[in-house]
Amino acid sequence: MNIKEERPVINIEDIKAAYERIKPYIRHTPLLDAYNMKSELGCEAYMKPEMLQYVGAFKLRGALNAILSMDESKRKRGIITSSSGNHAQACAYAGQLLNIPVTVVIPEDAPAIKINNAKAMGANVILWERDYFSRLDKVKSEAAEHGYEIVHPYEDPRVMAGQGTIAIEILNDLPDVDKILVPIGGGGLISGIATASKALKPEIKIIGVQPSASPAYFNSRKEGHRVSVDPLPTVADGLACRQAGDNPYIMIEKYVDDIVTVDDEQIVDSVRLIANKAKLIAEPSSCVGPAALLYKKLSVRPDEKVVCVLTAGNWSIEDIAHLYIGDEIRKIH
Amino acid sequence: MNIKEERPVINIEDIKAAYERIKPYIRHTPLLDAYNMKSELGCEAYMKPEMLQYVGAFKLRGALNAILSMDESKRKRGIITSSSGNHAQACAYAGQLLNIPVTVVIPEDAPAIKINNAKAMGANVILWERDYFSRLDKVKSEAAEHGYEIVHPYEDPRVMAGQGTIAIEILNDLPDVDKILVPIGGGGLISGIATASKALKPEIKIIGVQPSASPAYFNSRKEGHRVSVDPLPTVADGLACRQAGDNPYIMIEKYVDDIVTVDDEQIVDSVRLIANKAKLIAEPSSCVGPAALLYKKLSVRPDEKVVCVLTAGNWSIEDIAHLYIGDEIRKIH
Repeated sequence: MNIKEERPVINIEDIKAAYERIKPYIRHTPLLDAYNMKSELGCEAYMKPEMLQYVGAFKLRGALNAILSMDESKRKRGIITSSSGNHAQACAYAGQLLNIPVTVVIPEDAPAIKINNAKAMGANVILWERDYFSRLDKVKSEAAEHGYEIVHPYEDPRVMAGQGTIAIEILNDLPDVDKILVPIGGGGLISGIATASKALKPEIKIIGVQPSASPAYFNSRKEGHRVSVDPLPTVADGLACRQAGDNPYIMIEKYVDDIVTVDDEQIVDSVRLIANKAKLIAEPSSCVGPAALLYKKLSVRPDEKVVCVLTAGNWSIEDIAHLYIGDEIRKIH
Repeated sequence: MNIKEERPVINIEDIKAAYERIKPYIRHTPLLDAYNMKSELGCEAYMKPEMLQYVGAFKLRGALNAILSMDESKRKRGIITSSSGNHAQACAYAGQLLNIPVTVVIPEDAPAIKINNAKAMGANVILWERDYFSRLDKVKSEAAEHGYEIVHPYEDPRVMAGQGTIAIEILNDLPDVDKILVPIGGGGLISGIATASKALKPEIKIIGVQPSASPAYFNSRKEGHRVSVDPLPTVADGLACRQAGDNPYIMIEKYVDDIVTVDDEQIVDSVRLIANKAKLIAEPSSCVGPAALLYKKLSVRPDEKVVCVLTAGNWSIEDIAHLYIGDEIRKIH
């Protein structure tokens, strides 16, 4: 079976429709030219700072599109998802905004702050074992029992389409963009961005970036089929991923031109660069794109226009203080 | 003499003209609603993040307007200014951009990084004694000898008008703004913002905020005449000011509705809030506005739309790391 011939999971019309749906509720984040990072990044780089998005992450786009795609009776019953991170917060925020009930299944050993954040935004929190498949089962049984709609953080085509709206904004603000660098965790974000970008501008190049500690998609491409990995601890914890997703794998193999990896030290340097030069608080997962440029993981021309999607900023000043002391980098792990 | 009857130093036409001049060279910084800081700030607050401006500070607006107001023969000879901070960098950047020579007189004991930054942007650097009046004399003698145009960081009406362009953007993006909170150092920024705002929307309120360690304008208003202070060390070092300026004092007494002060601990808390919730790196001087809201230094209604001008971000991740360790605040001084 040639996977590239399969019916696509999402297409540009889904993403355009998503954009119309979510536009009233999201921030059109600015596209910032990285005029003062040319020597470090080796090209005409631009940052798409989704930490300035509401709830501090691009995840809001997908969560909103999923909810706004549901009919009234389903909305009334509510949604459920399993996540301890930005997707859970995005669902909670979107639910509060649109007045629909949200349940999140969070690993019982998750940091209290994440649990409290979800609760503070009105979500019903269920603490469950960390194991991914056990949590997925819990989500399914709760959904069956209460009639909740499941909103998967990266398999759900509505979520993928929502994340893809970032590409519409980028291409609107910078029509002559040459390349977009996108972090890959579960793969929903890059699926949406690649689908929209290739439809609107076929000659654009889409590059995925993974932490070398969690290279599920990188390895899958190398092997020519979906493989599992044992993710190692990484500062880019938001990108940890055991196996390339069903739907994202299809879209990534179809539309993503290349996948590269970066090490933790490179990510930490990139966080520092974005803070010091772009004046933005980026969580480490956000910074794999600039890290790939900083450490020449792909070849770029000096005149090439390259957009780095900075995905999220759910990182505190205290986290920064503990990671950077003077010129010494203190390892988190 | 009633100072309010004096001919104004600048007017709205100067600021509109400045905006037309500088628009091609500046970033129209976004106006970000502080949707997640309502409980802390007690109102519908918005942030105007000028750390996202080129060179990381609003100062570029004034420097550009000064240069672009000069005729060709003066531009060729170049400009000179005395500063070690954001104004010097802004002049250097603007000079490089417009290809005119820039000389900056910097205190000989200034940190090497500030000296190197000015040099890296192509400025001719003269190291001189720290004493303000001695440096001013040096600027004047150099200007006389070489035919340089002096660009004072806050007395120059062209600079004041340039900074005032921020108000045009704010009123364009949020016509129903009720109040604008503006840090006061030398007073050029608030002079420009107040002049433009009151002309475009007379019922708006303009509130100045100074660090309590450096209350020259606050004390001057209290006393009813310009007074000098001995500024104490403060984390908001960019706002240190010995005496209310000639021109800014006129405009501030004419148009600024109130002046309040905030302490260093309050400023540090505000930096933390802006980092953690707005995801922006703000230097402490930037954060006196949110600090005034956070610590109820002025009365605001919950439905009031209040814009805080965040002036600059020339602060590094290492500075942050040294200031915040866990929940403990380490004093810089």
